[in-house]
Parts: sequence; structure tokens; C-alpha cells
Amino acid sequence: MIDALALARDLIRCRSVTPADDGAQAVLGAALEALGFAVHRLEQGSPPDGPIHNLFATIGEGAPHFAFAGHTDVVPVGDHKAWSVDPFAGTVADGQLVGRGANDMKSAIAAFVAAAERHVARGSPGTLSLIITGDEEGPATHGTADLLTWMAVRGFDPDACLVGEPTSNQLLGDMVKIGRRGSVNAWITVNGAQGHVAYPARADNPITRLVAILAELKARPLDNGTDWFQASNLEVTDINVGNPATNVIPARATARINIRFNDRQRGVELENWIRDTVERHAPSAEVIVKISGEAFLTPPGPLSDMVDFAVQRVTGRTPELSTTGGTSDARFIRSVCPVVEFGLVGSTMHQVDEMVPVADIAALTDIYDLVLQQFFKSGDAA
Amino acid sequence: MIDALALARDLIRCRSVTPADDGAQAVLGAALEALGFAVHRLEQGSPPDGPIHNLFATIGEGAPHFAFAGHTDVVPVGDHKAWSVDPFAGTVADGQLVGRGANDMKSAIAAFVAAAERHVARGSPGTLSLIITGDEEGPATHGTADLLTWMAVRGFDPDACLVGEPTSNQLLGDMVKIGRRGSVNAWITVNGAQGHVAYPARADNPITRLVAILAELKARPLDNGTDWFQASNLEVTDINVGNPATNVIPARATARINIRFNDRQRGVELENWIRDTVERHAPSAEVIVKISGEAFLTPPGPLSDMVDFAVQRVTGRTPELSTTGGTSDARFIRSVCPVVEFGLVGSTMHQVDEMVPVADIAALTDIYDLVLQQFFKSGDAA
Ligand SMILES: [Zn+2]
Ligand SMILES: [Zn+2]
Repeated sequence: MIDALALARDLIRCRSVTPADDGAQAVLGAALEALGFAVHRLEQGSPPDGPIHNLFATIGEGAPHFAFAGHTDVVPVGDHKAWSVDPFAGTVADGQLVGRGANDMKSAIAAFVAAAERHVARGSPGTLSLIITGDEEGPATHGTADLLTWMAVRGFDPDACLVGEPTSNQLLGDMVKIGRRGSVNAWITVNGAQGHVAYPARADNPITRLVAILAELKARPLDNGTDWFQASNLEVTDINVGNPATNVIPARATARINIRFNDRQRGVELENWIRDTVERHAPSAEVIVKISGEAFLTPPGPLSDMVDFAVQRVTGRTPELSTTGGTSDARFIRSVCPVVEFGLVGSTMHQVDEMVPVADIAALTDIYDLVLQQFFKSGDAA
Repeated sequence: MIDALALARDLIRCRSVTPADDGAQAVLGAALEALGFAVHRLEQGSPPDGPIHNLFATIGEGAPHFAFAGHTDVVPVGDHKAWSVDPFAGTVADGQLVGRGANDMKSAIAAFVAAAERHVARGSPGTLSLIITGDEEGPATHGTADLLTWMAVRGFDPDACLVGEPTSNQLLGDMVKIGRRGSVNAWITVNGAQGHVAYPARADNPITRLVAILAELKARPLDNGTDWFQASNLEVTDINVGNPATNVIPARATARINIRFNDRQRGVELENWIRDTVERHAPSAEVIVKISGEAFLTPPGPLSDMVDFAVQRVTGRTPELSTTGGTSDARFIRSVCPVVEFGLVGSTMHQVDEMVPVADIAALTDIYDLVLQQFFKSGDAA
């Protein structure tokens, strides 16, 4: 029988700092093959963004088709000396598994496998798959998105999906994510005309225009939120001029903004609004806009009910259905099928001494198992 | 008889890049001593701002007392290779004297001396002085200000003063300065709380506050100007955050502003307005304010009439009485006596191939001489 903790430790011992794999997907693939899964280990994308190690594993056939999704890559360790243990040793101390990826999200992947073992033992009809990328913490260009394309071509579209990101806030089970806001970044460069500050009429101060642009962008309430989303929000995340001379009006000023937006907004409309606002104040400004992802939502329904039931049964807690936080690969999956995200407590993710209670890994396995039991009993989550 | 061109060339050959003197004031002092001036060569101030080479020269005694004022230091040459000649050779070519300090303002100092020679020859009663600093292009901490203090202690306060800065705009005589705007710089640092851009409620974006501060400061019309001054004006001259991460709200944002203000404003009142505005938007912000100088004006009257008459007689032009441009040491002198500024065409000052028409040096000598003739005939300019 699979020991989820042992598998999590084996995964942590692979130094899969994004986009490296260092054998992590081989460890995972071997465990799944032992359960009877067909394992497809892919290398997708070309330099400079690839190749990326992606893995698709599937067992059973036909409908209904449920998929777990996640990533084996991790963020860098940061200040190595600040760790109390080797971040790649998979140390267990004081009831905690400590290491890079402990909660984001190698332990959740181990729980996927342990829950899958029980599912396989039940001999349920239908298909169970794992959608695993090695490029979630990086640019994600050739990660889950490419893997979903590969799956679609081969008829592997799932009917429902659970992403195992660390969604719990303080305690295991206190939060499930049913959507995420979209995100757009914009880089604004205003070109003016340099001059002496004593002769402003002979110069064109780009800072004056930039401040007016940013004040106007920030002043507009984008929306008031929805039942499931908080209000869309704009932040100016950087401004730079770099003019050392107190008596000089500079030639150029740049700023960067980020908007986190709900499903009342569309990235392209926000882009147009930014461009129009800049244009009115500074017709010669350069604007670069990058839409990282649109907002998406799986409205509360059969899939979130199953997760809610499982969480309550195992932890006694009623999870909050939330759409807060950063982006995740669920944004790619949502265009294929309903998707929810549920996993461990993420309070130490991306930090020194990332850790998770060992007991939570067993509880998470039980929750994932209960979700599978409900899904394959009901026949579908849509 | 003094050859003003030759003296200007001798001064340019001294590499008196501020605060260096390189013998410039010795050259000047020797020329004045030959005319009978008592020459006081001073070293004022202590490290790090000093010692500074200052020179006070005086001839005659009692009232009325007229003073020429200027500086022997020059700005750096900049891109040495971009010069068509050695900037310290005192080259004459195509009717132009070319070199660092040619118009700002070693040629004007030579014209002071040549005009003084004619004054001495006339044997007029009263006192003629030269107030010369080696620290006008630098911080000016121990330059004219210290020299005026030294003079006041010894009863050398003049009744009127002409500063020989290059005030002419396109042609010699087209502009006289009768005042200058004040200048104040302020450095604003807003401290916020760093955080993830997806959780703005847990952070405090200092850029939001800074943009609001700058927009409000820029929006206020300070005044509409006066008969003699253009409107006071505020420019934001720098903003810096330096946040490389698109998903991070930064902890700190800084800006620098400059206000050029007329005599309807006072530096300390502008400082208080800046501090109050910042305080309302960002109580924990740090604000550093430096008042470089207050606005000053010598209203059109006897002194400017003398310069106007001399300019018209020599050049045929009616000078514009202006208060535009940067600060000058006249701001220190104005607290002692009426002061006007008149000198060569400054279009190439501080640039590569700084130059002045040789003919303008002779004409400037004639103008300065005519000012002295009127002043010492009238007995006073007040
Ligand atoms: Zn993750
Ligand atoms: Zn000067």
C-alpha cells in the first residue's frame, strides 16, 4: 500500500526547481505505473521556454472522467542558510514534513497517488487521470496549457478536475477555490522633452503626464465585485525615472501597473481602457500590455459540493468557497471542464522552512478519496 | 592700457573648474593691483565645502560705492573630445573666443577690469569694488555669501552692484536681469507595507499615496505671476520605486520636486504646504526640503535705467528687463543693495565649445564703463 508521506519525501528529494525535473516525474510515474496507470512522460516546448517535463497518467476508460492536476516543479530555496534543514532532504521533525515543495505541492501529488490506489482497488467504471506539469512556477508557457492540447487531440478531456494547490488558509479544509481572478500587467513609458527646470515651457515633463495617467487609472472603481468575486483592483507596482539632477526635467518616465480582475471584466477591455487613458494624456507614450489570464469561475454546484462534503467529513470544517489569491493553472483547465482547487495549508509556501503537518497529508488523502468516491458514484460533476 | 581679450584668455588658461582656482584669482588680482586696487585674496570655509578662493578688490573711498560681482570658477568641460579646441587654451578663431568660461564669465571679469581702468583714469570720487568668488558653479556655501559677510564686518557694503553673468539671450544687450525666482527642492519618501498584489488589503501601496500627493501638488496654481515675474511653477523631477516583481506591491516610493517661485511666495510657506499635503496622504512619509534661495527683485529704477541707457548707447538695443532663468549669486547681494545682472550671450554656457564674439568683449567693456560713468556722476543708484 502506498505511503503518501514516503512518496512526498521521495519527490522533495528531487531538486526540481523550476523548470528542472531532476527525476521527480520518474518517481511519480513509477508509482502510478505500479498501480496500473498508463503513464505518458512528455517533453513539450522548445528553447528558450522549453523543453518542459509534463506527465499525463490515466487508468480505466470511458466516462465519467475525473482528473487530478498539479505540478512537480518548485520555487527556488531562497536563502539556503536561513533554512533549519536541508530543503531537499525531506526531513520530518516535530510532526512536520519540512522541505521545498512540502505544501506547494509535492505532498498533494503524493495524496493524489494514495487516493488513486484506493480508487483502483474499488474497480469503479470510468477514467481517472493525473495532469502534472513541471512548469507551473515558471512562465507556464509549455506546461498545463500544452499538456491539455496534447490530451484534447487524443480524446482525453476530463469531465471534472481537482487542482491540488495549497488553498487552505489557516487549517486544512478552511478554504476551497472555485475560481480565480484574472491578471493583467501594463508597462507605460511616457516620452517627454528634457530641459532645465527653470524653463518648463521649453521642456515637456513626462512625469506630469504619467502622474495624471496613474491618478486617473487608480481613481476609477472597476466594479463592486460579484457574489463570488471581490472587486477588481488596480495597483501601480513600479515607477521609475532615474533622474539624478535636481535642476533637470527628465526625458522619460516609466510605470508598471497590475490589475486583478473578476469575471465582470475582460482582459482585452481593460487593455483598451489603459491604452485609451494613456493616449489622452500622452499620445506618444509606449504601452505594453500582457494579459496573464482571464478570470474564471466554476459556480458552486456538484463538484464543489463533493469537495465540501469530503472536507466536512474528514476535518469537521466547512470550507469557504473563495476566488481570492494569485493565478493558477486552473485557468487553463476551466476551458475544458469544471474545476475546483483544494489542498494543504499554504502559509509557508515559497518561504524558508516550507512545511506541512504529517497528519494533514493523511487527511488530504482521505478527502481526495472521498471526492473520487462521490464522483464515480454520481457518474458526473457537471 | 588693459587688453580685455588678452586678460580673458589668461583667465581661461587657468583650469579653475569649480572649486579649483588654478591661479585665476592671482591673474585677476595682479591686474587690479596694477591699477591701484587693494586686493584681498581670501580662503573661506572648511572641508568638505571649503576652503574656497574668494577675492575682494577695492579702490577709492567713501560713498558712493559701486561693485562688480562675478566668479572665476567654471563648470567641467564635459566631453573633452567633443570640443573643437583645447577648452583651456583661450583660442581665438573666426572672431570668437572659444574656451570654458568664455561667456560664463571670465570675459565679463576681464571687461570689469578694463572698465575699471577707465574709471580710475577719470579720478571720480567714491569707491569701486570687485566681489569675486571661486564657488558660484558649486554649492556656493562659502562663496559670495561668505565674502559679503567678510565685507560687512569691514564696512565695505556697496550702494549698488552689477553682476556680470551672461544674461544676454540672442544678441549682446537684449536682456538684463533685475531679479530671479527662488528655488526649493523637496525629497518625498512614502513608506508603505509590501505585499502580494493579489491581496492589496494586506498591503499598503506607497505608490498610490505618492501619486495622489504629486497630483495634488501639481494641480494647485501657485500664482499668476507679477508684473516682473512669470508664474511660480512646480515640476516633479524624479520618481523612483525600483520594484522588479510584477506581482509585488512595493514597500517604498520616492519622488523629488522642484518649485521655481516668484516674490509672491516664500520658501518656508512652500515648504509647509508640501509637508501638509504629504502629511494628509501619507502621515509616515519622510520629507526633506531644501530652499536654495528666495525670490528677489530690484524693481526697475535708477540702477536698471543706467544699464538700459548704456546698453542702448553701445548696442542700439533696448534690453528686456527679465527675471527668468536659474538662480545666481545676486540672491545674496540683493539683501545688501540694489543689484542687476548684465553680461554676454549665454547660449553656449556650460556646453562644449563655449564661445563669445571677440567684439562683444569690447562692447561689454564700453557698457560697463558707461554704467560707471552714470553711477559716479549721479552719486547713487538707490
Ligand atoms: Zn503551486
Ligand atoms: Zn556664471
